[in-house]
Amino acid sequence: MTRGEDNPIRVGVLGARGRMGAQAVQAVEAAPGMAVVAMVDAGDSLAEVADAGAEVVVDFTHPDVVLDNLRFVVDQNICAVVGTTGFTEERLATVREWLRAKPEVGVLIAPNFALGAVLAMRFAQQAARFYSSAEIIELHHNRKADAPSGTAAHTARLIAQARGEAGLKPGADATTSEVDGARGASIEDVRVHSVRLPGLVAHEEILFGQDGETLTIRHDSMDRTSFMPGVLLGVREVLGRPGLTVGLENVLDL
Amino acid sequence: MTRGEDNPIRVGVLGARGRMGAQAVQAVEAAPGMAVVAMVDAGDSLAEVADAGAEVVVDFTHPDVVLDNLRFVVDQNICAVVGTTGFTEERLATVREWLRAKPEVGVLIAPNFALGAVLAMRFAQQAARFYSSAEIIELHHNRKADAPSGTAAHTARLIAQARGEAGLKPGADATTSEVDGARGASIEDVRVHSVRLPGLVAHEEILFGQDGETLTIRHDSMDRTSFMPGVLLGVREVLGRPGLTVGLENVLDL
Amino acid sequence: MTRGEDNPIRVGVLGARGRMGAQAVQAVEAAPGMAVVAMVDAGDSLAEVADAGAEVVVDFTHPDVVLDNLRFVVDQNICAVVGTTGFTEERLATVREWLRAKPEVGVLIAPNFALGAVLAMRFAQQAARFYSSAEIIELHHNRKADAPSGTAAHTARLIAQARGEAGLKPGADATTSEVDGARGASIEDVRVHSVRLPGLVAHEEILFGQDGETLTIRHDSMDRTSFMPGVLLGVREVLGRPGLTVGLENVLDL
Amino acid sequence: MTRGEDNPIRVGVLGARGRMGAQAVQAVEAAPGMAVVAMVDAGDSLAEVADAGAEVVVDFTHPDVVLDNLRFVVDQNICAVVGTTGFTEERLATVREWLRAKPEVGVLIAPNFALGAVLAMRFAQQAARFYSSAEIIELHHNRKADAPSGTAAHTARLIAQARGEAGLKPGADATTSEVDGARGASIEDVRVHSVRLPGLVAHEEILFGQDGETLTIRHDSMDRTSFMPGVLLGVREVLGRPGLTVGLENVLDL
Repeated sequence: MTRGEDNPIRVGVLGARGRMGAQAVQAVEAAPGMAVVAMVDAGDSLAEVADAGAEVVVDFTHPDVVLDNLRFVVDQNICAVVGTTGFTEERLATVREWLRAKPEVGVLIAPNFALGAVLAMRFAQQAARFYSSAEIIELHHNRKADAPSGTAAHTARLIAQARGEAGLKPGADATTSEVDGARGASIEDVRVHSVRLPGLVAHEEILFGQDGETLTIRHDSMDRTSFMPGVLLGVREVLGRPGLTVGLENVLDL
Repeated sequence: MTRGEDNPIRVGVLGARGRMGAQAVQAVEAAPGMAVVAMVDAGDSLAEVADAGAEVVVDFTHPDVVLDNLRFVVDQNICAVVGTTGFTEERLATVREWLRAKPEVGVLIAPNFALGAVLAMRFAQQAARFYSSAEIIELHHNRKADAPSGTAAHTARLIAQARGEAGLKPGADATTSEVDGARGASIEDVRVHSVRLPGLVAHEEILFGQDGETLTIRHDSMDRTSFMPGVLLGVREVLGRPGLTVGLENVLDL
Repeated sequence: MTRGEDNPIRVGVLGARGRMGAQAVQAVEAAPGMAVVAMVDAGDSLAEVADAGAEVVVDFTHPDVVLDNLRFVVDQNICAVVGTTGFTEERLATVREWLRAKPEVGVLIAPNFALGAVLAMRFAQQAARFYSSAEIIELHHNRKADAPSGTAAHTARLIAQARGEAGLKPGADATTSEVDGARGASIEDVRVHSVRLPGLVAHEEILFGQDGETLTIRHDSMDRTSFMPGVLLGVREVLGRPGLTVGLENVLDL
Repeated sequence: MTRGEDNPIRVGVLGARGRMGAQAVQAVEAAPGMAVVAMVDAGDSLAEVADAGAEVVVDFTHPDVVLDNLRFVVDQNICAVVGTTGFTEERLATVREWLRAKPEVGVLIAPNFALGAVLAMRFAQQAARFYSSAEIIELHHNRKADAPSGTAAHTARLIAQARGEAGLKPGADATTSEVDGARGASIEDVRVHSVRLPGLVAHEEILFGQDGETLTIRHDSMDRTSFMPGVLLGVREVLGRPGLTVGLENVLDL
């Protein structure tokens, strides 16, 4: 059944007064075929989402409370799309266990809802085995504390894994004279370069090369509104996917 | 059986003295697990490839002779990787017919062996349905006669098709005052912009956008050596793929 | 005398409650060696800036009132940095006339305070005569009404003028088959391409090419805070430049 | 007097059979208003250029012979455009001394004849003082031995110098957690990142940033034909510039 204006997907938002939660409320309200039926934040009762008949909750809360939230909604047969961080392997196993008893309920936990970032990573994985070398440039505003960014480091690892599976050795590099750091950080033999400048926001460029050609995949993120299409996609997809799904890339059907 | 130095794939090159054919000879010779066993050009006998025990031929010849070449090699149970142009639907049907009688023989016909261009098109197809708008910029040297390039026009059509299948309408565009041509060519409602400058070679940039983020896929091609990795991949893959395959993208297993 | 914390430049802001004016107030307050001494908006008296001892006013008001504002501040021996639009040649002549009687007073009127845009235009002008061809790509969000952007059209004209002065003919272009619009808009024989996508903000890319090389100058503007360094530079420079100066580029001392 | 087809500039090429010299011969022959009157290489007599009435020589020879070449041509009142490397301060002083006795003769010695690279450096110098931060990304094929490239390191030093003269401190950088090398090499506090990939040729990107905007200057060099417009410009300009000029940027009149 296609969900439309007559029977919109009923969505509850947990953490509805936080930065991401408030964005999610707006985005769901503006999306065709969806409606916000409950907004819950610290001090409110979780029971509100059940009382309101929510089919899916979106959770942008806190690592301290997210497991309790999930326990409750799974018990109530409500699906969940979770952007809250802090999911260890152990925590994921716990959620999987709960879902075993509820074969109809789906939970999507995603560390990154930026569609472009997720697609860029996926394409990088797909392209990696066709190229003799790959490098990453990530560019962020100069208030960022870590270099490289988590996304770039993760992308490098995905590329390294795909190269390894294809039997590729590290890309040839004739550098014999280097000013310290010029060739970037080596993340599993994939070089990553971190640029920091005021005026930048969040950008990642993945470069592949072989004789005579290069392929570049670039993602530019301007602000956190860019996460919302991924959240909405998650809401739509989680209803038809029982069990635990980790990572937005796994609902994209690429 | 993995093919290695002890039992290399035996390759015959048709059109071996032409520009692309000569490149192919060099590339096959340099590739691990492959060997050139026959080089045939105008005036030589096709029988040479059979006599030499070729398992695969690479054909960079001419539309006038390519069908005769294919007829011969298919009869001899030799597979083929074909870069020669001029394949109409009718010609493809003829080749398919021949292959019906030879269930072990594979033929790969590809209009474009540039891996990066093929990957860029594939990724564009995959990304298209996630973005509200897409545009293409293609940049070539200023001796090029057509605008946009065939690759860019083809990419635009693939994007339009993917958008259509996802039920997306043409991207919103608030332009009310335009100097003629500023907004580019419209290829099935996807805008394509053609830059022509000396110093450029062949470049394509596909841009996707939605609120707060953009995704860009760019392919830069410097010279025709860039086609050889695609040809080698074709040689490796065609052996295990009986029947007719059209387009390198269909052997990439993305 | 270098102006520092002990004797900051005394600045009055006209249009202080408007979007740009409010930004200017913040920027001046945060800048070392400057202080806001008066904030004036519709309904307030202009006399406040004189009473407060302002040495420079920043005017982001409206075409209807800006001439009256200038008349008043020039009479009071106060310099002005003006971002308000609507200055025709006739209006500029009027201001020049007033300044003739006040040889110590400087007025800077600038249509664009984005340093990067101004520098990009200046560099484009400088580079133009060294290259056989030039094209411009400008990329904006898809709510923009005009294509190409005013800045891109202006840049194209500057390039055309520099090329003309160097005796260069229009760049060679071998296009014989074109889908309407593919080659962009022709602004005095310089091609300009306008990309419109959600997720973009305001971007301009100027490309120069000749055999074997290209030079690209790109400006990316994220939000209107980017105008403030240009406003502050204007405030510092106008004090030492009596008479009328039109265009931020003329105080950059490039 | 404008030099045209009737009275072309008479050019002798030293090192005429070397890679760069041969390119120079071709370029001069193809240029309007210039003619090659002598081609000299190892084993030929330098007297040929004088006998042929050369007004300018182009020298792409070797550090071992270039000083003898210059001594001879200056004595003969012939100007010189020199791309041969190895000029120390001491060697430059020697040439200057010779030229003192010949007030009509001009010599241009340039380490880099790529107009785009020279312009990019010049623009970088001009832009540097207007931005709170600057970084450089240089991208080359993976057969290059040094990282960063000489051009990028030189550009970084020019930027650092311009920033220093404007009283700017090193750009703010909040990085507290870094994988070794991620933030690139520090050349006088300007960060430089070196990407090495097959398929690349020689590319330099200079990025400037401040709140809300970035300015990027990029040079792409495809092959050594890109040096010839700079050589031709040098030939034209050296005739009117007595004495020693070091660096192509000093004849560009920017």
